Amino acid sequence: MSVTAAQGFEAAGVAAGLKASGELDVAVVVNRGPLRAAAAVFTSNRAKANPILWSQQAIRDGVADVVVLNSGGANCFTGAFGFQTTHLTAERAATALGVAAGDVLVCSTGLIGTGDETFRQGVLRGVDAAVERLSVDGGADAAHAIMTTDSVPKQATVSRDGWTIGGMAKGAGMLAPGLATMLVVITTDARLSSTELDRALRQSTRVSFDRLDSDGCMSTNDQVTLLASGASGIVPDPQEFADALTALCRDLALQLQADAEGASHSIAIEVVGAASEYDAVTVGRSVARNNLFKAAIFGNDPNWGRVLAAIGTTDATFDPYDVDVTMNGVRVCTGGGPDRPREEVDLTPRETHLLIDLRSGAHEATIWTNDLTHDYVHENSAYAS
Amino acid sequence: MSVTAAQGFEAAGVAAGLKASGELDVAVVVNRGPLRAAAAVFTSNRAKANPILWSQQAIRDGVADVVVLNSGGANCFTGAFGFQTTHLTAERAATALGVAAGDVLVCSTGLIGTGDETFRQGVLRGVDAAVERLSVDGGADAAHAIMTTDSVPKQATVSRDGWTIGGMAKGAGMLAPGLATMLVVITTDARLSSTELDRALRQSTRVSFDRLDSDGCMSTNDQVTLLASGASGIVPDPQEFADALTALCRDLALQLQADAEGASHSIAIEVVGAASEYDAVTVGRSVARNNLFKAAIFGNDPNWGRVLAAIGTTDATFDPYDVDVTMNGVRVCTGGGPDRPREEVDLTPRETHLLIDLRSGAHEATIWTNDLTHDYVHENSAYAS
Repeated sequence: MSVTAAQGFEAAGVAAGLKASGELDVAVVVNRGPLRAAAAVFTSNRAKANPILWSQQAIRDGVADVVVLNSGGANCFTGAFGFQTTHLTAERAATALGVAAGDVLVCSTGLIGTGDETFRQGVLRGVDAAVERLSVDGGADAAHAIMTTDSVPKQATVSRDGWTIGGMAKGAGMLAPGLATMLVVITTDARLSSTELDRALRQSTRVSFDRLDSDGCMSTNDQVTLLASGASGIVPDPQEFADALTALCRDLALQLQADAEGASHSIAIEVVGAASEYDAVTVGRSVARNNLFKAAIFGNDPNWGRVLAAIGTTDATFDPYDVDVTMNGVRVCTGGGPDRPREEVDLTPRETHLLIDLRSGAHEATIWTNDLTHDYVHENSAYAS
Repeated sequence: MSVTAAQGFEAAGVAAGLKASGELDVAVVVNRGPLRAAAAVFTSNRAKANPILWSQQAIRDGVADVVVLNSGGANCFTGAFGFQTTHLTAERAATALGVAAGDVLVCSTGLIGTGDETFRQGVLRGVDAAVERLSVDGGADAAHAIMTTDSVPKQATVSRDGWTIGGMAKGAGMLAPGLATMLVVITTDARLSSTELDRALRQSTRVSFDRLDSDGCMSTNDQVTLLASGASGIVPDPQEFADALTALCRDLALQLQADAEGASHSIAIEVVGAASEYDAVTVGRSVARNNLFKAAIFGNDPNWGRVLAAIGTTDATFDPYDVDVTMNGVRVCTGGGPDRPREEVDLTPRETHLLIDLRSGAHEATIWTNDLTHDYVHENSAYAS
């Protein structure tokens, strides 16, 4: 149940001194083949960290042998020196493993602006140490090494008839924004081309990680990487593979939501009756990003007026006076007015379900978010000091 | 220094029992002429409260004699009964003052969904009582009566050669969102047509209230109304009037920012070097709505990486690696890397200045916002309970 669950992969996590705490902070994941197919999706933020700039180029040929990941520094806005650090990191891993530097992807997470000589030497030392410790049992250590403010490592595995997908994750969009960034590495022993991997990965992330919107903020370092070893020898049905990959991505996404920093509620915003999937996502996201709604949920207050005020700012197709809002099973608003008394809504459980029926079509989407809490403010105001 | 500073206006504020505290909660402002010209701008939220729906129709002919305002209930999503309440409110004031109901504007603020029979009777009682107490000294009471979680009333006056503009305000976008909504009434004794008032009002609000973005949330009840009595007999130069009106609106906007609920910093985000004013506003707003940046400012943490991560999500014209970021006078980022040490930035004063130079043109704009604090979360999680 990890990034080494699929055949053909080894991993390791080591402590290289990037974290002041002395915890694991550098991870390496290696694809031993026989295939070397890979795909990746990256943050759409125009402010991209050096490892993103590097990995975007390295993945272009659809081939990757290695992913190096570090916590303890984002290596973002660290200038030419920072980009050189990423380059050196890839070269170090490539030399140690006998592959080309252009087939090594790099991921970093931590504070923006961190990437000095001490950081560089720490990462390089970590690469050396991790390569020494690579093993098929190294998945758990690797998952630990990419944690920042995560309280638990996130791992998942999905097995089908003869082939397996495994993965690890940290952060979530900016869901655990204390030290920010979502990094995900997924591996499979199914036989697939990089084109097939790319198609499946985009299809899956669109309805999983892309719908997790904890605080509306977008990291400079987000990266989701998918590697295929083909070691099972099995060529799966493309749709079956995509479905399994989606299940795995959703599993990891919900683990991230459950561990969101400072959050006291995991909120699923289900939008139905939409004229298009785009409308459903737009409406859900407007609520997920509304601080007033999120603060109300923190206070166990079923304030449906804030839901309507939020969705009223979108251009989605619906009549604001003909929308149903249901909170944890109790319909509190219908047809432009109050329905059941708000006192009937129990918001004490962590799992919170908001159902919005736009009554304008047959499309739907669910956005996952968290509440806005004292702890969120505290953890995001204090970490750099 | 109030909504009755200009000649030709009377106002009153009374306690009608809408607020459980027994404080003033209904205000009336009357234009005694000789002119009856008026203009108004409204929330762009598609979820509009009943008083907005009413006032939008009533202002169409550019004539208004009276504005009735209440706190203690937004009368939003209260169905046909709620709209009828607004209608009855206008009729009650019209009858008492000998004008047409269609020349009475109505504004409400408070909890969405509040607007039952008790609320209706309270408002009507308040109208009766306020009309009895109308006076040229009633501006201060009126300004008190529209307060919700505001800690002080907001009033301003600007005088030019023989003519005056006065105004009162509460809330701010959703700046004081405990009971939400920005309501503003501005009066002048200058002689202007409703077309001239409308043009000046749109020009002024665009660079004042529209650039105040405390938490990115948009109310269902926002309304800014401008009434002209012409009682000074003076026809001002249109641009001179617009400039004076802009100064007054900015004064009120900054009072709202200074009183933002729970806030510990008033942040001016000045964007310069933009390719267009639109770009400058877009970039400023992206920072104003970034919870991570706002939480960092609360913690006196000059986290410039969060500024770059925020502006990187926009489509404005600039190179993320060629932007200067200056916080309270200290340039902390230039050319895609750190500049002066963050330790040099003193964020302890309430007034906070963030300067972003996009180095892409000659346009600029300033967005005003507040930090994200424990108190903001608390006050917005607890008020309805």
